[in-house]
Amino acid sequence: MTAAIHGVDAARVHEVAGLLAPHIRQTPLIPAPSGGFLKLESLQPTGSFKVRGFFAAAHLIGRDQVARGLLTVSAGNAALACAYVARELQVPCRVVMFDTAPALKVNGVRALGADAVLMSRDHLLEWVATRAWERDPEVFIHPFASEAVITGHSSIVPEILADLPDVERVIVPVGGGGLICGIALGFAALKPGVRVVGVQSEGYPLWQRAFAVNGPPSLTPDTIADGTSAPFDPVMFERLGSLVHEWVAVPEATVRRTVASLATDVKVVAEGAGALAYAAMVDGRSSPGTVAILSGGNLDGSRLAELLTE
Amino acid sequence: MTAAIHGVDAARVHEVAGLLAPHIRQTPLIPAPSGGFLKLESLQPTGSFKVRGFFAAAHLIGRDQVARGLLTVSAGNAALACAYVARELQVPCRVVMFDTAPALKVNGVRALGADAVLMSRDHLLEWVATRAWERDPEVFIHPFASEAVITGHSSIVPEILADLPDVERVIVPVGGGGLICGIALGFAALKPGVRVVGVQSEGYPLWQRAFAVNGPPSLTPDTIADGTSAPFDPVMFERLGSLVHEWVAVPEATVRRTVASLATDVKVVAEGAGALAYAAMVDGRSSPGTVAILSGGNLDGSRLAELLTE
Repeated sequence: MTAAIHGVDAARVHEVAGLLAPHIRQTPLIPAPSGGFLKLESLQPTGSFKVRGFFAAAHLIGRDQVARGLLTVSAGNAALACAYVARELQVPCRVVMFDTAPALKVNGVRALGADAVLMSRDHLLEWVATRAWERDPEVFIHPFASEAVITGHSSIVPEILADLPDVERVIVPVGGGGLICGIALGFAALKPGVRVVGVQSEGYPLWQRAFAVNGPPSLTPDTIADGTSAPFDPVMFERLGSLVHEWVAVPEATVRRTVASLATDVKVVAEGAGALAYAAMVDGRSSPGTVAILSGGNLDGSRLAELLTE
Repeated sequence: MTAAIHGVDAARVHEVAGLLAPHIRQTPLIPAPSGGFLKLESLQPTGSFKVRGFFAAAHLIGRDQVARGLLTVSAGNAALACAYVARELQVPCRVVMFDTAPALKVNGVRALGADAVLMSRDHLLEWVATRAWERDPEVFIHPFASEAVITGHSSIVPEILADLPDVERVIVPVGGGGLICGIALGFAALKPGVRVVGVQSEGYPLWQRAFAVNGPPSLTPDTIADGTSAPFDPVMFERLGSLVHEWVAVPEATVRRTVASLATDVKVVAEGAGALAYAAMVDGRSSPGTVAILSGGNLDGSRLAELLTE
């Protein structure tokens, strides 16, 4: 796999957005109480942006390959999206997940008819490092490094531009980095000059630390933003280095408070990862031209209750 | 006050919608997991549909009258809307509220710079019955019986039609009845034949009971749908009798469960009243042409946490 992604020009972004239109939602962009706007990807089918990438990948792979079934590895939201796309295409699906994934994500995958294989973090990281999927019968869709997945995520950009033509800055939560790479490529194609800000929790500031030490840092996730717990990946490191203009790390306590304030003040449910960009926006980045991506809302009810009463 | 509301024709509905456009949001209509659609009035400024009616009323009253300040009486959401409109127009505001109103609503009113006067239910109902506002210096806006408020609520109808031209049925939570009267008038003007369904909790089925006994029933609210705790009003009784096609009462336990499932499955926060229409839709009314109005999302975080862990 090479790091550079070519061919994501304006025509390609619009083509992918058109391809996805029947399968996904054009999510609302709502004004935030702080100023700026929130893009509610939590309202996508399966509760996160991930359906964009997985539908795009499944379309690009082609019917005969897809008929073998889909396979992915995921902190949860990619698993849900993969299972949803497989069900829509009426093919089998298997997902490898952390055994610490929220019950709502694991149960959701199974409710969609997919096979959820739970592994410890060490076991799962080894499964990824050895590219175990190459020995499996299904088509493997990499949840964030796949070029097709990343190109699928660029479909969010025409939607933002339709609602806010004067957008100046977009704040994006970062796990593996697929979403922010897709968004950065989309803006580079359609409105160069929009500033792309990546945000993580201080409970797992993987990429900030990676750029500081210029390589894989030694970090274990300790964050409610479980959706951002992807491991270091050298290809994504190179892509993020060239596509992201600024990095922000939000204190874990702020992420927790932000989930609660999104519920009580904005009336929307965000999971930890989904709250990151709004937390960064409230912290001095709430100009009228700023969009924060609320990437997902898959949070166990018991966890949301806990955050609401802290 | 007469019951019949004249002059709400198609031109008038569009005129009011145009008047309100700079001040309110065109809220998203999202597909519901059950089938059908949800209109997210919870995403309005102040977290409920009420800003539509209060902006319309303030505009129609005229600047010189409005300069005296605004006064209303409210279970909470009308109070928030009145305070918000007064702040936008830079005039004083005073609201009379139940002393049992959720803290989020009382604190919200005060945060908007208005004076919140808390009364026991008996005291407040007496204040209303004696039309105490006529002795007060401010302009009184009746939170649900005002024709201007009702006409303001009709502005939701062109938005629904723009997103779902083939709408066949709309399910609306009912407290005092201002929202459903506005919606019924709007559809009568723009798409006659759309079925208008009113929904309340079995914890306070005021209007169902009123139509059963053909007059004011003896009922005390025992429901988390605090936004529907308005008293019987003979003018509204007559209007509802002529405008609403069907009534539904949802068991209180279902309302509570629905608040939780809206948060975990749909990723939106609804207060008790806001969950009523979705509860009625899930219960056998989820055809593709059905819209449930999610009227508001002003719920104390502690209450939401309680419902999430039941």
